[in-house]
Amino acid sequence: MSFQTKNPITGEVLPGSFAKSSAEEVSRACESCAAAAATLRRKSGKELASLLETIGASLTEARDAIVERVQAETGYPDGRVQGEFGRMVGGFAAFAEVARDGSWVEATIDHADPDREPLPKPDLRKMLIPIGPVGIFGASNFPLALSAGGSDVTSALAAGCPVVVKGHSSHAGTCELIGMAIQEGVAKAGFPEGTYQLVQGEGHEVGEAIVTHPDVAAVGFTGSLCGGRALFDLAAQREVPIPLYAEMGSVNPQFVLPELVEANGEGFAESFFGSITLGNGQFCTCPGMLFLPPGSDALLEKLASLVADSTGQPVLNEGICSAFESGMSRLESLEGVQVLAKGTLEGAVIGAPAMVVQVSYADYVAQRDVLSEEVFGPSAVVVVCDEVAQFTEAARNFEGQLGASLHGTESELAGAKNLLDELERFTGRVVVNAFPTGLEVCHSLVHGGPYPATTNSHFTSVGQSGITRWARAMSYQGVPDALLPPTLQEANPLGVARRVDGVFTL
Amino acid sequence: MSFQTKNPITGEVLPGSFAKSSAEEVSRACESCAAAAATLRRKSGKELASLLETIGASLTEARDAIVERVQAETGYPDGRVQGEFGRMVGGFAAFAEVARDGSWVEATIDHADPDREPLPKPDLRKMLIPIGPVGIFGASNFPLALSAGGSDVTSALAAGCPVVVKGHSSHAGTCELIGMAIQEGVAKAGFPEGTYQLVQGEGHEVGEAIVTHPDVAAVGFTGSLCGGRALFDLAAQREVPIPLYAEMGSVNPQFVLPELVEANGEGFAESFFGSITLGNGQFCTCPGMLFLPPGSDALLEKLASLVADSTGQPVLNEGICSAFESGMSRLESLEGVQVLAKGTLEGAVIGAPAMVVQVSYADYVAQRDVLSEEVFGPSAVVVVCDEVAQFTEAARNFEGQLGASLHGTESELAGAKNLLDELERFTGRVVVNAFPTGLEVCHSLVHGGPYPATTNSHFTSVGQSGITRWARAMSYQGVPDALLPPTLQEANPLGVARRVDGVFTL
Repeated sequence: MSFQTKNPITGEVLPGSFAKSSAEEVSRACESCAAAAATLRRKSGKELASLLETIGASLTEARDAIVERVQAETGYPDGRVQGEFGRMVGGFAAFAEVARDGSWVEATIDHADPDREPLPKPDLRKMLIPIGPVGIFGASNFPLALSAGGSDVTSALAAGCPVVVKGHSSHAGTCELIGMAIQEGVAKAGFPEGTYQLVQGEGHEVGEAIVTHPDVAAVGFTGSLCGGRALFDLAAQREVPIPLYAEMGSVNPQFVLPELVEANGEGFAESFFGSITLGNGQFCTCPGMLFLPPGSDALLEKLASLVADSTGQPVLNEGICSAFESGMSRLESLEGVQVLAKGTLEGAVIGAPAMVVQVSYADYVAQRDVLSEEVFGPSAVVVVCDEVAQFTEAARNFEGQLGASLHGTESELAGAKNLLDELERFTGRVVVNAFPTGLEVCHSLVHGGPYPATTNSHFTSVGQSGITRWARAMSYQGVPDALLPPTLQEANPLGVARRVDGVFTL
Repeated sequence: MSFQTKNPITGEVLPGSFAKSSAEEVSRACESCAAAAATLRRKSGKELASLLETIGASLTEARDAIVERVQAETGYPDGRVQGEFGRMVGGFAAFAEVARDGSWVEATIDHADPDREPLPKPDLRKMLIPIGPVGIFGASNFPLALSAGGSDVTSALAAGCPVVVKGHSSHAGTCELIGMAIQEGVAKAGFPEGTYQLVQGEGHEVGEAIVTHPDVAAVGFTGSLCGGRALFDLAAQREVPIPLYAEMGSVNPQFVLPELVEANGEGFAESFFGSITLGNGQFCTCPGMLFLPPGSDALLEKLASLVADSTGQPVLNEGICSAFESGMSRLESLEGVQVLAKGTLEGAVIGAPAMVVQVSYADYVAQRDVLSEEVFGPSAVVVVCDEVAQFTEAARNFEGQLGASLHGTESELAGAKNLLDELERFTGRVVVNAFPTGLEVCHSLVHGGPYPATTNSHFTSVGQSGITRWARAMSYQGVPDALLPPTLQEANPLGVARRVDGVFTL
């Protein structure tokens, strides 16, 4: 069985047809990873860094072909694709640095004390070690930064884990080109073939085969709540359960304090419009809900005119397109929900026009659940509150979100500690005076949050700290120095930061 | 419905009867924790440290009553109980230090760069924050160190999470005394009542009610594979799944290299016998399997005589007693399994005699699964190998274990890198020339390991690092300094170790 991909701007079927991987092929890919795992877990951080850099170079060589295919399969404009290509390759460089630095393993040493009473104290040393083969499901909306060569792949390889990737069916051609470039890099770096395996397929079977394969030790997923939860359940129900780290998106509510509305409501409307239409709203960090104080008429008017004048952009595939349409009609049909404005759609066969609806706080409260459901695309629900105290009340009732923002003037932020506290309760990232879109990829980023934003709020899926998802804790008691991993040897030959006898040392 | 506990030495029913908590009581306890969680997450490390120290003092005041009840409910000798009491109270002191130090939150800062091209870089800061109310199931075998006032309780409180504890039904009286002392400490420290809640019950209902309660955010469990897995499944199947950290024991195989057998086989037999009968084998770290090279006759003879001469000790309850009996008969009935020696049982109505069985490597391989099943109590399976290469082969086929040891002379250890590597593959802790029993509680301890030893190999359940189980990642973007948690404020008022712009700083 094979499938093809489409250009969402023209609607045309693109050249190239992709065979759905059979159960045997998925199984072979996982077994190949398992064989490679034994090699990878013995590689030094330096060797893993060099693998990542070699792959980065292979991808850069293939840049033109990849960029062209991404544009055709996603309808993304050139600037976006070039930028995302840079982010993908930059990810290999960033994680090469993490692997080379080696401090991510949380090395800890407690020295022996043979004279301790009543019992001698043994020597104990601890670090994180690779968990084994990792299955990865790329996101439809980041065909480069979060897909076949995305940050789950780079973080897993940096941790010393081989990966088996399920290409996303709406950019299967992009995945194939990326996969080929990565496999070339793997070979050049002298790593085993099982270091990186790519399988393809529409539908659920291929993904389910990965999650349930006994050799797979952990899974990373970015996508919908429904898909993520189904795979999480499979992973938990295995004879040997494995962690499934799913990032499943959210509505990332925005709260705007009154002085800011007064001082610069129209300016805010412009940036908000920019954020909800960035990438045509196809970001898990898209700010899909906006809470406004009374007196926001000028802001709303400006927002309405921007939306009404917008001409829309393509969306990634027909599934997103029809989910957006039905999501918006569901919203429109709710009690008290009014369409603030709707844009038009030009120049894309598969696309979505921007749309913003508005509702009073009372009607929002009465229909909280359905109004807080993510509608993936360029849309937002504006909740016009009667008083600012309702912000805190609304925040107190949110379920897990990736992010939330608080917008205000300096003086009103100073008095908003309690509201900020409530935002912290349900999110993985609170943002002040900015939108959650445009992730800054760094050590301090948390792209995560309480369920249903993710299935595991302890970790982040994007940013350097995401590497710890692919590791388990290991302790060595009384092991002779020469037999210890270099990270834990007494002389600290790798020069990593370690906690020694309870105290951090550099 | 109420129940009582028994003295395993005399078999007599002890005074005091314990009401099984009703569904409403469990629910109220969880809700009380949820209310306290809002207070606790705002407490400083210093305040949490003082809470832990106040509780430690309360427990010390109640020492005599607790010790007496533990002895009656477990049949443990005085030395053991006094030692474990010290470990319990020591745990409160150790985690007070962790809370006060504050470095466990993995604080990370990436500074803004407003001049960065093409886009300004925002300020991002990250730390671990408390996950919320934690449900805790104590172990039967550590009524002090791993129960109502055990290390799951101390680590959760140190992280800023309130706890609801299910007392273990075989030492319910001990739990009640500990619970009262802790609640007294909580009140003295000025913390809300919901900081610590104790519920009691035989059977599954009370535990299931905790795991499925919507206010509970994470669960810690120490006990059997069957019980742990059932609760793990419940936690994963919730509408909002939560992490369930179960430590479910293992057989902790021991491998002895030939030079050591030759040099000191009898000495080894003595320490091995000491390890399997310590606490009458009722440790998850009990070394239940022993792999010997050819030429181990003197060692085996010595071991046989020690076991045969032993008079046995009480076990904790009738369930453990009958599981031990049926486990040992199952082993005896297997092809090629011979009883090496069996002790007698004196002076305990509910008890178990030490017993060691022996099997050839070939017969072991043919019945690997059933021979590797844990029989909780003073027992071991000795596998007599035909050649040392079979050690590596055996290691390659083990499923997840808490620990494994390699015993050898200095020179033969130097050549055993590959075998050590194989031990690492399936365990959370490799030990050289010592037994896994007698956990050294420190930062570098991993009391964990791949499934089925635990449900999550990323973490440890004992030792200071266990605190991170009760936390989730949180990131603050562009938040004004005064509104940040002190840990992340620019001036570092708490003086914690932080990663700043990618580099560890003290």
